[in-house]
Amino acid sequence: MSRNPVDPADLDLKTPPTQEDLEDLALGEDYALNAEFVEMVVDAADRGDIERLRELMDALHPADVADLMGFLSADYREEIIPLLAPEALAEILSELDTNIREEVLEAVSPAALAKALEDLDSDDAADVVDDLEEDKRAEVLAAMPDVERTAIETTLAYEDETAGRLMQREVLAAPQFWTVGQTIDYVRRAGDDLPELFFDIYVVDPANRPLGAAPVSRLLRAKRDTPLSEIMEPVTEIPVDMDQEEVAYIFDKYHLISAPVVEPGGRLVGQITVDDVVGVIQEESEEDMLALAGVSDAGRDATMFGIVRSRLLWLVLNLVTETVAVSAIAIFQDEIAKLVALAVLMPIVSSVGGNAGTQTLAVAVRALASRELNAANAARIIWRELGAGIVNGIIVAVAMGAAVVFFYHNWRLALTVGLALIANIFIAAVGGILIPLALERAGRDPAVSSSIFITFLTDFMGFLAVLAIAALILL
Amino acid sequence: MSRNPVDPADLDLKTPPTQEDLEDLALGEDYALNAEFVEMVVDAADRGDIERLRELMDALHPADVADLMGFLSADYREEIIPLLAPEALAEILSELDTNIREEVLEAVSPAALAKALEDLDSDDAADVVDDLEEDKRAEVLAAMPDVERTAIETTLAYEDETAGRLMQREVLAAPQFWTVGQTIDYVRRAGDDLPELFFDIYVVDPANRPLGAAPVSRLLRAKRDTPLSEIMEPVTEIPVDMDQEEVAYIFDKYHLISAPVVEPGGRLVGQITVDDVVGVIQEESEEDMLALAGVSDAGRDATMFGIVRSRLLWLVLNLVTETVAVSAIAIFQDEIAKLVALAVLMPIVSSVGGNAGTQTLAVAVRALASRELNAANAARIIWRELGAGIVNGIIVAVAMGAAVVFFYHNWRLALTVGLALIANIFIAAVGGILIPLALERAGRDPAVSSSIFITFLTDFMGFLAVLAIAALILL
Repeated sequence: MSRNPVDPADLDLKTPPTQEDLEDLALGEDYALNAEFVEMVVDAADRGDIERLRELMDALHPADVADLMGFLSADYREEIIPLLAPEALAEILSELDTNIREEVLEAVSPAALAKALEDLDSDDAADVVDDLEEDKRAEVLAAMPDVERTAIETTLAYEDETAGRLMQREVLAAPQFWTVGQTIDYVRRAGDDLPELFFDIYVVDPANRPLGAAPVSRLLRAKRDTPLSEIMEPVTEIPVDMDQEEVAYIFDKYHLISAPVVEPGGRLVGQITVDDVVGVIQEESEEDMLALAGVSDAGRDATMFGIVRSRLLWLVLNLVTETVAVSAIAIFQDEIAKLVALAVLMPIVSSVGGNAGTQTLAVAVRALASRELNAANAARIIWRELGAGIVNGIIVAVAMGAAVVFFYHNWRLALTVGLALIANIFIAAVGGILIPLALERAGRDPAVSSSIFITFLTDFMGFLAVLAIAALILL
Repeated sequence: MSRNPVDPADLDLKTPPTQEDLEDLALGEDYALNAEFVEMVVDAADRGDIERLRELMDALHPADVADLMGFLSADYREEIIPLLAPEALAEILSELDTNIREEVLEAVSPAALAKALEDLDSDDAADVVDDLEEDKRAEVLAAMPDVERTAIETTLAYEDETAGRLMQREVLAAPQFWTVGQTIDYVRRAGDDLPELFFDIYVVDPANRPLGAAPVSRLLRAKRDTPLSEIMEPVTEIPVDMDQEEVAYIFDKYHLISAPVVEPGGRLVGQITVDDVVGVIQEESEEDMLALAGVSDAGRDATMFGIVRSRLLWLVLNLVTETVAVSAIAIFQDEIAKLVALAVLMPIVSSVGGNAGTQTLAVAVRALASRELNAANAARIIWRELGAGIVNGIIVAVAMGAAVVFFYHNWRLALTVGLALIANIFIAAVGGILIPLALERAGRDPAVSSSIFITFLTDFMGFLAVLAIAALILL
């Protein structure tokens, strides 16, 4: 399935496109849904052309159906939901964004849902069940076979965003005294009880504690009479209550494909595979980026008021801190009345300082997230930031001073704003590194709320430095 | 290897810690290096205790040795490089940050390097060779066996950050008419020519074009006489020149574990595995986050001047745009002289507007990166942002107006800044969504430079709106 995208303009619209044309048209060269394809879905829905809609949906991979739902408004989704192929429903559900998923779940019967969920691994199924309303959840679970229901209920008993929620309970384990041949024979017989896909076979002791893991490719390569204990490698065990961010860090650091999840006693209870972790990594870095910008993700299909809610708190906080910051100006109102140029230049000092602070902050937050910054090197990194702050401060101050001389022909005014700028960029460097470090040490997420602190700091200091230095040497 | 971290205070320092104690001490509960362990390395290096240093290094996984190097300053690294175990060298090299890697590469002999590189997959080996200086590169390549050298040279011929650079050339392919049994026998015989680990067997036609893939776990489960064509699934082919960001998007979207890489003619030339993609995903989202903050990552071991360089350009750009923005103030200097309160309140309007703009911007950049925003839904999302901007603007403006009445007892001044704030938050919403969309449409990275535009826009409009409205209705 190579992508040879079709330009919709090339399609002869007299003869309707074939199924194959549709598949080629659906995705762009970058494997994202084509806007033209979404347009075709909307047109068909507007005309009430059910036949056509079904054709269009059939041309898509379940992940792309889920993507399409995100591009459509709620009215169009409603028309499409009844057309989803029952065999694709499970996978589509596990790909949907939460609020769209809730919509779909409401429209599907409990019996159909129970059937679809059986096709999913326990982690994905639990994820879907978690989004069901109380009474529907009971109905759906009651309609499922005992084994699947228990697996889902056990998964949901673990806390959100922990290894327990991320893991699938289906896992392939073998006693250490088995040979490669015995293991292969067992796999051939066991069939459906095994995970749909697996990459490692966990070798366990009699108490079901992992001793090591044998990659499937190595099993395939070894002679039938080789004992498992000979081809197994040490494994990194994941405690079932570990935070998902740490799980992602470990997978990334040691390039893991799968890892066993263990209970406090060390007993094997499931496995996490790298494809689950890819989603977590995306999520965690997006969260950091949005947190730095003072916004939470309202979700792809948020309403206008969902967006208002997700941003208002930070705007109001910013209003409050900024009101405090401008008190520095209010104190020196007389100085401004004497020399209005100060009111013109002051915002430059604040803005450039804020920019410098944000730079240091973003680098520090990234380094903390990737565990590249800790007590072992904090002192060295702080000194480096302060040094860089002073050097950058001096360079930018000279440039600004020159501009002030050019526009105002006033050397003392240039000296005033130059000194203020050096002070503010230096303070930005101090704050940009110390604020996230302090938040981290206090057990808080350094990405959240540190930008509001740094903005306050550099605005306040920017105003104060310009006006106080002006009061001392200029007026 | 479960983590039961040892508190260093519990260690009896009279009797030196055993190797096992060291391993437990090295990593914290979160699997990151303990600051105390780094301290022990520094102490041993200060005392010149080579024996001890070697013990400490032996307690670490190669990925943690690489991590340790990042925490040490260059002087200490120099002492440690000769102590790296030759058999771990390859893996340590492939984990190191670029500038530290260059240091290590300089200190290791071409013969030792050539030997270490043979242990790596072609993508990792090429990555290391790429960092070698011209003449050393020639020496190292000359010391390698023909097959490995050709693999590395071919990989390096592809452009940086493309699928060709990400892929490993080692791949397991089988003709479609083979059975499961034939394939397993082939794997047992082939041994070293196969990739170290593999997850899928690619089924190819006589021209070596992929027809499908059979997961190894499915191969293990099938009967020996089953033809491969019966258990294979369709594959997503990755063109060799595809950008790595798109490769990551496809892996994430379709939950791929590995994918075949093909030449323009469709011939199989290698495979990409998900563990390579995890690194790319990390990298790309970090880049976006730093770009939004107007800073490039100078690298973990950057010097102070490296940091200065990575930030100065944006600071100077910010100085220039801000100088233009304050021209709005310069025009209305007379109004400020008449009512200094304007100089006090103006920065609040700019700052809150800037904050609103940054929020919208971050959400838009994230949505563009995850392909959730394109021509199909741009209009709807723009309207939603504008609506949310007006609502948030009105709410924040009422709060600010009330504060102005409280502090200044001036209704008309409150009305002035309130109206200015609504205007600025609205403009922030427009800019926050249209600037990244325009950059994307122009083929630019929307994360880079959009924040400097939005800061300029909201500062300029903040000043202008306050002062122009004041001139109209207040003064």
